[in-house]
Amino acid sequence: MERYDIAIIGSGPAGLASAINAKTRNRKVIVFGSSDLSKKLTLAPKIDNYLGFYGIKGAELRDKFKEHIDNMGIQIENVKVNNIYAMGEYFSIMTSGDTYEATKVILAMGMEHTKPLNGEDKFLGRGVGYCATCDAPLYKNKVVTIVGYNKEAESEANYLSELASKVYYVPMYRDDYELTQEVELVKDTPVEIVGQNKVEKLKLKLRELETDGVFVLKDSAPPEQLVPGLEVEDGHIKVNRKMETNIEGCYAAGDCTGRPYQYMKSVGEGQVAALNAVEKLYRK
Amino acid sequence: MERYDIAIIGSGPAGLASAINAKTRNRKVIVFGSSDLSKKLTLAPKIDNYLGFYGIKGAELRDKFKEHIDNMGIQIENVKVNNIYAMGEYFSIMTSGDTYEATKVILAMGMEHTKPLNGEDKFLGRGVGYCATCDAPLYKNKVVTIVGYNKEAESEANYLSELASKVYYVPMYRDDYELTQEVELVKDTPVEIVGQNKVEKLKLKLRELETDGVFVLKDSAPPEQLVPGLEVEDGHIKVNRKMETNIEGCYAAGDCTGRPYQYMKSVGEGQVAALNAVEKLYRK
Repeated sequence: MERYDIAIIGSGPAGLASAINAKTRNRKVIVFGSSDLSKKLTLAPKIDNYLGFYGIKGAELRDKFKEHIDNMGIQIENVKVNNIYAMGEYFSIMTSGDTYEATKVILAMGMEHTKPLNGEDKFLGRGVGYCATCDAPLYKNKVVTIVGYNKEAESEANYLSELASKVYYVPMYRDDYELTQEVELVKDTPVEIVGQNKVEKLKLKLRELETDGVFVLKDSAPPEQLVPGLEVEDGHIKVNRKMETNIEGCYAAGDCTGRPYQYMKSVGEGQVAALNAVEKLYRK
Repeated sequence: MERYDIAIIGSGPAGLASAINAKTRNRKVIVFGSSDLSKKLTLAPKIDNYLGFYGIKGAELRDKFKEHIDNMGIQIENVKVNNIYAMGEYFSIMTSGDTYEATKVILAMGMEHTKPLNGEDKFLGRGVGYCATCDAPLYKNKVVTIVGYNKEAESEANYLSELASKVYYVPMYRDDYELTQEVELVKDTPVEIVGQNKVEKLKLKLRELETDGVFVLKDSAPPEQLVPGLEVEDGHIKVNRKMETNIEGCYAAGDCTGRPYQYMKSVGEGQVAALNAVEKLYRK
């Protein structure tokens, strides 16, 4: 299998800063993210504190970033990373369809700002999960509920419906939902996940769903779910000044490492993470 | 005396990033530096890794930075800071001519890359100094040698010559030197500062100068000389992830905090330092 020098998870300012620095040092890089780069950035009405661009619109800054990476021949893999495993000499990066290998990993997936559901942490691994396609085999002929925070979650629901006896889909956004007829759309607000030892029900404002599993599908899973063994403190990935995490070869940068949630902080950390990763690659 | 919320020492990327962030939060800021912003930046032939500007010339990026601060009404005080003293509730910032007060200080003066002279560290405080005008009274009717790394050092030599019995000026750069006739220009290369308990001689390649004091005048003094009590590690100011130094209310950002010496790392740290300083100001 092709092995990359550095895999970068996230295409916001931190991920892009990592990518351009690794590329400048002639490293073989793969970036997982969104072809839109960063939703948060794109929606920012006006940015005054990114040095060099006073009063720029978020979408314009996004375009400048895009132009920069295009000029350097950096592409974004528009797929979601479900899990990253430290294999010793390298990392194994799992998406729904493929597996990738990279010697170093930089986590730059931003910060999920939505609160966990009541009961979500309690039942994690006992009926609560973050990757429906990964855990699908566990729910063969069972009832599954998906709480989806984005459009991508719809295809996970459709996929699950081929195995599960029943799939409920609770969207946390408004859109034209593209669900197969096997999936039941539930337009309601989740209140709590309940059960004895494992998930039994999802309580919503208007009704209750009896269910064997609840998948909470956001833009990114909590970091400690994404990378088993990763040390997290108050919801942020713990890093030192070199942007190293507790897992050797795994770095983190940007919002996922803590406040302030700011563009320059993110690009600075992305750069530091990349240059330290590159230095370690040289030394090997 | 007028008291600033935040005094920023340095007008490179880290200092400017601090300034725009403090200003965005409506803090009263003073920036000490060069009206040229950053010599190193200005001279960079081409920069590929400042996200948003691919392949930009250093001088062009400097102009973008200038435009940014101009738009925000941020001015640079073109004077050299000689000493900063922590006074408890505030800091006292001494330049050759004036004293300023600020509640918080951000050190962003970059990194002096020239090596110390042989004997410089050994005789520090025993004949070696970094601010000729500050220590002038000590050298009344004595012999003083100035090793000057920039044009500004010439005026310190001229000033000293009014008190000292003799002033030698050893320039470490080429220029038309503007020295009074009391100052003796010595075009030679320093080799070592020697003496028993205190400075007695400066040995140069071609000759030796008997001298009571040697001032080494670079763009910036070593940080621990600038701020007495500041903790320094391997020549860099020790900071935590909030860019706090060991002195409460004193932050640092950019090259002076360590490698990599890179623009995005600097702006990121400048932003973090400023936002943390601002947060502390709010809490007071």
